[in-house]
Amino acid sequence: MARPVMMFTGQWADLKLDEMAKAMRDFGFDGLELACWGDHFEVDKANAEADYCEKKREQLEKYDLQCLAISAHLVGQAVCDIIDERHKSILPPYVWGDGDPAGVNARAADEMKATARAAQKFGVDVVNGFTGSSIWHLLYSFPPVQPKMIDDGFQLFADRWNPILDVFGECGVKFALEVHPTEIAFDLYSAERALDAVGGREEFGFNFDPSHLLWQGVDPVEFIRAFPDRIYNVHIKDAIVTLNGKTGILGSHIDFGDHRRGWNFRSPGHGGVNFEEIIRALNDIGYAGPLSIEWEDSGMDRMHGAEESCQFVRDMDFAPSNVAFDAAFDKEKQ
Amino acid sequence: MARPVMMFTGQWADLKLDEMAKAMRDFGFDGLELACWGDHFEVDKANAEADYCEKKREQLEKYDLQCLAISAHLVGQAVCDIIDERHKSILPPYVWGDGDPAGVNARAADEMKATARAAQKFGVDVVNGFTGSSIWHLLYSFPPVQPKMIDDGFQLFADRWNPILDVFGECGVKFALEVHPTEIAFDLYSAERALDAVGGREEFGFNFDPSHLLWQGVDPVEFIRAFPDRIYNVHIKDAIVTLNGKTGILGSHIDFGDHRRGWNFRSPGHGGVNFEEIIRALNDIGYAGPLSIEWEDSGMDRMHGAEESCQFVRDMDFAPSNVAFDAAFDKEKQ
Amino acid sequence: MARPVMMFTGQWADLKLDEMAKAMRDFGFDGLELACWGDHFEVDKANAEADYCEKKREQLEKYDLQCLAISAHLVGQAVCDIIDERHKSILPPYVWGDGDPAGVNARAADEMKATARAAQKFGVDVVNGFTGSSIWHLLYSFPPVQPKMIDDGFQLFADRWNPILDVFGECGVKFALEVHPTEIAFDLYSAERALDAVGGREEFGFNFDPSHLLWQGVDPVEFIRAFPDRIYNVHIKDAIVTLNGKTGILGSHIDFGDHRRGWNFRSPGHGGVNFEEIIRALNDIGYAGPLSIEWEDSGMDRMHGAEESCQFVRDMDFAPSNVAFDAAFDKEKQ
Amino acid sequence: MARPVMMFTGQWADLKLDEMAKAMRDFGFDGLELACWGDHFEVDKANAEADYCEKKREQLEKYDLQCLAISAHLVGQAVCDIIDERHKSILPPYVWGDGDPAGVNARAADEMKATARAAQKFGVDVVNGFTGSSIWHLLYSFPPVQPKMIDDGFQLFADRWNPILDVFGECGVKFALEVHPTEIAFDLYSAERALDAVGGREEFGFNFDPSHLLWQGVDPVEFIRAFPDRIYNVHIKDAIVTLNGKTGILGSHIDFGDHRRGWNFRSPGHGGVNFEEIIRALNDIGYAGPLSIEWEDSGMDRMHGAEESCQFVRDMDFAPSNVAFDAAFDKEKQ
Amino acid sequence: MARPVMMFTGQWADLKLDEMAKAMRDFGFDGLELACWGDHFEVDKANAEADYCEKKREQLEKYDLQCLAISAHLVGQAVCDIIDERHKSILPPYVWGDGDPAGVNARAADEMKATARAAQKFGVDVVNGFTGSSIWHLLYSFPPVQPKMIDDGFQLFADRWNPILDVFGECGVKFALEVHPTEIAFDLYSAERALDAVGGREEFGFNFDPSHLLWQGVDPVEFIRAFPDRIYNVHIKDAIVTLNGKTGILGSHIDFGDHRRGWNFRSPGHGGVNFEEIIRALNDIGYAGPLSIEWEDSGMDRMHGAEESCQFVRDMDFAPSNVAFDAAFDKEKQ
Amino acid sequence: MARPVMMFTGQWADLKLDEMAKAMRDFGFDGLELACWGDHFEVDKANAEADYCEKKREQLEKYDLQCLAISAHLVGQAVCDIIDERHKSILPPYVWGDGDPAGVNARAADEMKATARAAQKFGVDVVNGFTGSSIWHLLYSFPPVQPKMIDDGFQLFADRWNPILDVFGECGVKFALEVHPTEIAFDLYSAERALDAVGGREEFGFNFDPSHLLWQGVDPVEFIRAFPDRIYNVHIKDAIVTLNGKTGILGSHIDFGDHRRGWNFRSPGHGGVNFEEIIRALNDIGYAGPLSIEWEDSGMDRMHGAEESCQFVRDMDFAPSNVAFDAAFDKEKQ
Repeated sequence: MARPVMMFTGQWADLKLDEMAKAMRDFGFDGLELACWGDHFEVDKANAEADYCEKKREQLEKYDLQCLAISAHLVGQAVCDIIDERHKSILPPYVWGDGDPAGVNARAADEMKATARAAQKFGVDVVNGFTGSSIWHLLYSFPPVQPKMIDDGFQLFADRWNPILDVFGECGVKFALEVHPTEIAFDLYSAERALDAVGGREEFGFNFDPSHLLWQGVDPVEFIRAFPDRIYNVHIKDAIVTLNGKTGILGSHIDFGDHRRGWNFRSPGHGGVNFEEIIRALNDIGYAGPLSIEWEDSGMDRMHGAEESCQFVRDMDFAPSNVAFDAAFDKEKQ
Repeated sequence: MARPVMMFTGQWADLKLDEMAKAMRDFGFDGLELACWGDHFEVDKANAEADYCEKKREQLEKYDLQCLAISAHLVGQAVCDIIDERHKSILPPYVWGDGDPAGVNARAADEMKATARAAQKFGVDVVNGFTGSSIWHLLYSFPPVQPKMIDDGFQLFADRWNPILDVFGECGVKFALEVHPTEIAFDLYSAERALDAVGGREEFGFNFDPSHLLWQGVDPVEFIRAFPDRIYNVHIKDAIVTLNGKTGILGSHIDFGDHRRGWNFRSPGHGGVNFEEIIRALNDIGYAGPLSIEWEDSGMDRMHGAEESCQFVRDMDFAPSNVAFDAAFDKEKQ
Repeated sequence: MARPVMMFTGQWADLKLDEMAKAMRDFGFDGLELACWGDHFEVDKANAEADYCEKKREQLEKYDLQCLAISAHLVGQAVCDIIDERHKSILPPYVWGDGDPAGVNARAADEMKATARAAQKFGVDVVNGFTGSSIWHLLYSFPPVQPKMIDDGFQLFADRWNPILDVFGECGVKFALEVHPTEIAFDLYSAERALDAVGGREEFGFNFDPSHLLWQGVDPVEFIRAFPDRIYNVHIKDAIVTLNGKTGILGSHIDFGDHRRGWNFRSPGHGGVNFEEIIRALNDIGYAGPLSIEWEDSGMDRMHGAEESCQFVRDMDFAPSNVAFDAAFDKEKQ
Repeated sequence: MARPVMMFTGQWADLKLDEMAKAMRDFGFDGLELACWGDHFEVDKANAEADYCEKKREQLEKYDLQCLAISAHLVGQAVCDIIDERHKSILPPYVWGDGDPAGVNARAADEMKATARAAQKFGVDVVNGFTGSSIWHLLYSFPPVQPKMIDDGFQLFADRWNPILDVFGECGVKFALEVHPTEIAFDLYSAERALDAVGGREEFGFNFDPSHLLWQGVDPVEFIRAFPDRIYNVHIKDAIVTLNGKTGILGSHIDFGDHRRGWNFRSPGHGGVNFEEIIRALNDIGYAGPLSIEWEDSGMDRMHGAEESCQFVRDMDFAPSNVAFDAAFDKEKQ
Repeated sequence: MARPVMMFTGQWADLKLDEMAKAMRDFGFDGLELACWGDHFEVDKANAEADYCEKKREQLEKYDLQCLAISAHLVGQAVCDIIDERHKSILPPYVWGDGDPAGVNARAADEMKATARAAQKFGVDVVNGFTGSSIWHLLYSFPPVQPKMIDDGFQLFADRWNPILDVFGECGVKFALEVHPTEIAFDLYSAERALDAVGGREEFGFNFDPSHLLWQGVDPVEFIRAFPDRIYNVHIKDAIVTLNGKTGILGSHIDFGDHRRGWNFRSPGHGGVNFEEIIRALNDIGYAGPLSIEWEDSGMDRMHGAEESCQFVRDMDFAPSNVAFDAAFDKEKQ
Repeated sequence: MARPVMMFTGQWADLKLDEMAKAMRDFGFDGLELACWGDHFEVDKANAEADYCEKKREQLEKYDLQCLAISAHLVGQAVCDIIDERHKSILPPYVWGDGDPAGVNARAADEMKATARAAQKFGVDVVNGFTGSSIWHLLYSFPPVQPKMIDDGFQLFADRWNPILDVFGECGVKFALEVHPTEIAFDLYSAERALDAVGGREEFGFNFDPSHLLWQGVDPVEFIRAFPDRIYNVHIKDAIVTLNGKTGILGSHIDFGDHRRGWNFRSPGHGGVNFEEIIRALNDIGYAGPLSIEWEDSGMDRMHGAEESCQFVRDMDFAPSNVAFDAAFDKEKQ
């Protein structure tokens, strides 16, 4: 189908955008999904400087790279999360401020509104990101969690995000939540509930990323079938389940990449995701947006992986059929 | 092997002990693993009243029931947990107090010491229970969790439990952590790390419960093989994985018992636990303690289940061999 | 749950009802699901003779057997089928008549109306049966089948069965189609379409029989989840898939029972049906009707099988829970 | 082994042969397996026009394409089938005639004889095709099918095809039945019985196509092992089983390509067929004929698929070994 | 089918027969398959003493126990084996003699002839046993094994056993080889070759024991299907494959019973053998002989196991059907 | 990681080294692992002729081929084996001598010492090879094998190999046993025991070859995890398990390559070995040596296979990561 093949820059923000863009161009990518951190895409400047967006486009065009969506995972995370020391390292100083939790939540929400406005200026229709969650720590119901505590978590999500989504609506931009652990939605049924919590409003949809579903045992294809009109962006990321009797699916408080974990992320094609069926499902729902690689594999050199995965995605993408096969047997059509 | 078959009373504390004991006697149980809540086993009274323990024994003997271990899951949970509103409902008022987190942690630690003393008075060698965990909410490493944060969590566990375990040591009683989500150890590798954190001291071991390992993908038999000298008590509890493409292993913030969850607890024999191999492994390590049913199945009448599972455990237990089979072929031994 | 355990008499019509009933009573059954063939339940006499139904009840009561549903598979088959020589052997002479296809279809439809009336007289709420299908032979789309041919088949089903279902409605009786190859509905999606074809009218539901779904690869539990308010009767029948590389799922035109087939029917518990999950799903939807064994196993003596399966069904049935397990941890409820 | 890689033109008959041949040449094919419909290979003209075959060869040679077999599936289907409206659209007018079933059967048989003669003239040794079946609709034995009805179906097949095969024998051409649903043979055991029905005569063999066996659960390799001397042609076609609990293997009267079906055809390498083992089995039996792609995938652009699959087949084919490995260890052979 | 349930006494020869028989009677067995070692069945005395066989029968009848076959595994092993120190401990002194290999082979062959004569006197039709093998050590072909070395091994088997089988023929007794590692036949294809080696003579058949096939990956049912007329005795013995990534199927030179082995024997029903399908296959071939438990489970008390397995075998055995199920639908048969 | 891709010449010794080297160069190999048989690497000449090693290097360099290890499987086999006629064909005449077993064992041991010296001269650090085993024929413990017999086998291995390993130590060369059936170590636990037998001395390690582990059910990755500091060389060889119910894992005394065997060797990528996980494990342990293809596939032309597998190995090898992924989220590192 010749969907554009992009690299999401989130895991490359230690590199300057120029360096990163040059490498990706050389590997054959069609474009980048810019992260709103590092110097990749700076929301504050995009809104403050009249020509920031234009110059950013020029910077990309120098490498023949498109940008169809930007990503604001880090700030989005701080909207609903219970803030702690971990957030300081992922937030811009002006969002972290004095680190007072309520203030951080509020400033993060403001920054997300600003991100919608920057996206509009930059000319992209989709902002990918996280929402955070005030109830993630209640995941396992012990000490017993009363249903109302969960209800409250989804309500707080709606209360904090509806005003943000209003701005997205004004800007004609959509917010695509990457369904992911620690977010308000991390699997199929919690995605259903999150969508319900905001009344199914159109500004809210999903950045489909099969890697987070795979190890939870959720079939990524079922996710696409469940939300055919809410797949606003697609991440190509792979994961593998490495249960062997000793490892556990919850990961044992062990860092990513260690073989004693029950699962790990993998370069696309090196894990358990069935991309064939995903492409077919995306064809079925008419998804025509980018296929954006989020590259993360603690066991592989990332330059090797970036190059290899660009080719992998090109090879796996194909257009749907436009013929009915029986027609060829029908003499009237011969 | 005729290990005694017990019922853990934790899920029956809404019933008075007499009522509960009578029913279990009728179902054929050999004894009860008394929970330290409800009127089942009251730590404060056991220490304060000279004849509490004696009367409790008489109460059990009236129904021909033994008691070989008591359980203190609820108070133990509050030792390391970050305290919130959920803990109020599971703690005795004198432990909860004013609910100030640091105070609750401290009083819970004191109560655990008192529990060791009560166990000694009551004449049981093992107290089962939980430890709580200050790092459970960091389970999924996003926002990125620095290794030091995990290290600190295990250190805090050691700092809070070592003084408690000292008292256990003095009393000649062992503490058996039920390896379980939300505890400092919830799978094989975290159990290894928890044991290391307290220097492998003998007072600290495990209440082996396969149900919590099964759905995480950990083979319960591997757990026994890994800690052959630390299995201080055994819970017979079953669970089933019900992944079908839409359900997720993390449970989607959905209550136990709902078929949209990726796993659920089950009455023993109705789930996925391979008890045959567990009995063989317990035989291998020489475990001669009780097989204590922790009955929980949101889809079955609990009286039906209690009766059925008592018989199930009797049927599945067997003694190891004491012959070498080739001996019968050897004419000198004929 | 103490649902009544019945034997469906369809495969025993070579025996007189008295003989059959006596054996089933001795095996421990609670009742019979009478087939409308042999001398088990004669629709013509039930309508014509004032005391037929009363005498039939007395005949059953002599053996302490209930009857909660009757079954009219054979005549129902002839309503939509394209009639051929096979139908002669399964129809009463007065329905077969001269064997002219259109006449047979019409008389079969009339007989189904008569069956509803007889059921009302006999005091049962459910008639189980087949519908036949005019499009079964189009199952595999070669020579290419135009969608309209399938549409026409479902329309013909609706046209022929709506007048019958009108009579069922008048009589306060429901028709429960056993979803089965050669019927208008043989799997989940065709059942959905059949239900749509008759506008979802309440008189039309299903006799749930997992054996026919199993070998097609349909999870019987998914069927229950899909039609929770349309399970009007339950057949306990088992089947096994015996694919070994040489056998085929379509059965190779080989008779039932031959090991060269890719699947076969089995006595309950001897095949691949997961009755545990079925009972749980039936509990979830609140099904309180009979569990009716349809016994068929070409490799087992049927008397052995009948006795064994009665016990099997009693053992597998259980009531759902009426407690919330966390309640026992809550000190306010202790 | 460098077996020639062909494209079967059956599903491309909506294109003129020139257009089709040009595309296939560009994709790298060695040749075409011409369908006897459209303008690809016209049996009537081949017999009537002295230079038809020569010109057809020239037409192919223009594109450097060979032709080693022709295919007559559509007319063959009408030899044994019970004729209905579907056949009209797949038959040449001169075979359909007035559509009277007996007449259609007879004219189809005559056309098959003519096809053998045309094949001889065209210089190919194999005609692939279907046989039809008068008993396909009896596949599931309800209403009960008497064994004699099946016997009669195989006898009718023999009675109608033996005279046709006599002509094949005279012409030195073989008929290769594509074992396929709706044919007299659709799996391994029915193929065995069909071969027996014609006395194992050499003119009758099989066009091996793994796709039809796969979803029935028959291992394609077992088919090759069962009939090592009867594999007269090989179709490379793939299929996938997509059972997910709701879909059924019989396809629910739903069109090919819909994801609610329990299986579908796939471009080679995109399904479940294990071509590696097939190549090894073909090497074992010494099959040296063409590998002919029958391309059908309702979810993929056919031009993309044709090109991709040509390369796929080239990559998967390899020659068998001609050394004994231990020889290299033997010092006398060094 | 009420096949008699026997205990094979081979693994109980450390017990006197009286003691053993009493225990087995109490456990519910119908009879014993007497081992020709210990005092269970002494071939030399049976031939030498006029009343030995009669007294042995009386001894068994005292416990209501039948004997339908005797077993001569140990001596049979020495017929073809390359003799080493291991054989001394399993052979009677008069067979071992001076231990000179050729002499041992010859005396073992004589003893097998004597066993046939003793069986005839004792009134049993079947002698179970081993054959030994001169080529077992060549199992893995390195250093490279020339085909002739294998041919020679089967020829030697035929040369040594044909004279023995002649005596079996004279006595009207059959020899049933237990297909087993270290024997001339240890799986399906080697059994086929062994049978060929003795020209398929009727005196030679098999003692079917599924446990030895299971861990080799051979489906025991396929063995029954392959040799339907050569199943002369049936051993009920179970085994389990315990591969976990570290264990190996060859057993690592580790003793039976150790969990580090890749497989082990198990009490019937505690392993991986599918006895259901075995019973059905035995019903299909009309096997009406005994079901003889060979009990060996290094992880279970043998008295517990013997009692439990007797009941297990009774429960699993059932008679085949004698009705055609469709008959009940046929009004002429009602 | 750009590990060098080598071809092991053992299976090509029927070809002169020049011919073989030329072909491998053309296929793209980086080097050869020379076998110490044929004219590939002659130990006697290497020690006797001053310039043999230098000329051998020149011969290789002519084809741009490296050599990092030599292999002495055949002579090594004769060190511990019980010698029989098979060894004659694999040994140099000066090792075989008069074929007297003790003499052969002794001369083979001497030759292994000579091989270490030759390796030193030739400038390679590793000699791969076999050890033979005096207890392989005792693999299956019947007639019962006493533990002492196994102990003796490992002791004999130590007694014979320690003096050899002393010479290896002197030469600064390591011996890498290819863990393989018929050797003292053939799976994970026997490898552990062999290593213990020689006191874990550093001169003794393993030539990791996954093909021999796979069919035994041992996960090759577990082997690497078990011996991270003893992987001295790596063979890339594949195998496939072809159990189908009739075939057996022990191979039925049937030659390699026959489809009636339960497993066979395969060209890399055509079997069941998961090379992806092997590369990751090798990366984890820091293995930086060669990836040496041992090519053996009875069903494929070896020239085709050699070429294809060289590319396969290049494609599958990759370097590990040197970044921490979370770093990119950390604003301090951006």
